[in-house]
Amino acid sequence: MYLAARWFPGHLTELDRAECVELLERSEVGRVAFGDPDGPLVLPVNHVMVDDRIVFRTAPRTAIADHVGTGQVSYQIDEFDSYTSSGWSVLVRGTAELVDGVWLRAHDLEPEPWADGRRTLYVCITPTQITGRRVVPV
Amino acid sequence: MYLAARWFPGHLTELDRAECVELLERSEVGRVAFGDPDGPLVLPVNHVMVDDRIVFRTAPRTAIADHVGTGQVSYQIDEFDSYTSSGWSVLVRGTAELVDGVWLRAHDLEPEPWADGRRTLYVCITPTQITGRRVVPV
Repeated sequence: MYLAARWFPGHLTELDRAECVELLERSEVGRVAFGDPDGPLVLPVNHVMVDDRIVFRTAPRTAIADHVGTGQVSYQIDEFDSYTSSGWSVLVRGTAELVDGVWLRAHDLEPEPWADGRRTLYVCITPTQITGRRVVPV
Repeated sequence: MYLAARWFPGHLTELDRAECVELLERSEVGRVAFGDPDGPLVLPVNHVMVDDRIVFRTAPRTAIADHVGTGQVSYQIDEFDSYTSSGWSVLVRGTAELVDGVWLRAHDLEPEPWADGRRTLYVCITPTQITGRRVVPV
């Protein structure tokens, strides 16, 4: 197979911020990205939206938990259809912080502890930039 | 809806390197991550594998093209099933470099120019670490 046949030749169009937020609200899973001394790390999490902020859960002493508050992060979602070589992606750039039960309940999110009793952390990403693009088949 | 109901409560298991490479070979689309002064960027591309190296195409003067050779990168793929709250993800960490037609043909990849005549660049990521994990429903 020729290499070119496996690369999407479509045109890119920009998504506006409102469309990006709507896609984030409809999605359950995304990828949080942050840097450590060896470069960027990208890890999937599932999220909920609180207005234009992204909230996800992680465990203490993970790479994500250790990084919160120490630098810029990104959050990315996408969806692609290989058959039509089309799709879209959204990239959120911003800062991450831990939020507590008071904050969550104030925003109508009611966390429940996991059955195994493990402590959990809730991370909130506040966007500084939200961009998106769509690949349209030629 | 309770927040907890929207977070995957599954157990994580590690994937070995061979399984990760097989998943990369079966996938067409992944996400390249790299850092700029404002933090990490994550952009979807479609790729082919050359042994355990990842090759994708980009245009000159894009964020990706400008970054190649200037630092560490990551490449990430994943697949999730919201219904069963299960899925897997693979993270490649490594370095990126531009490769040329000689390199591509030596590895049985035959690039064809796009119809619109735009110049294209081919980027190769050489892994320094490949890890993956699977979320198994509880």
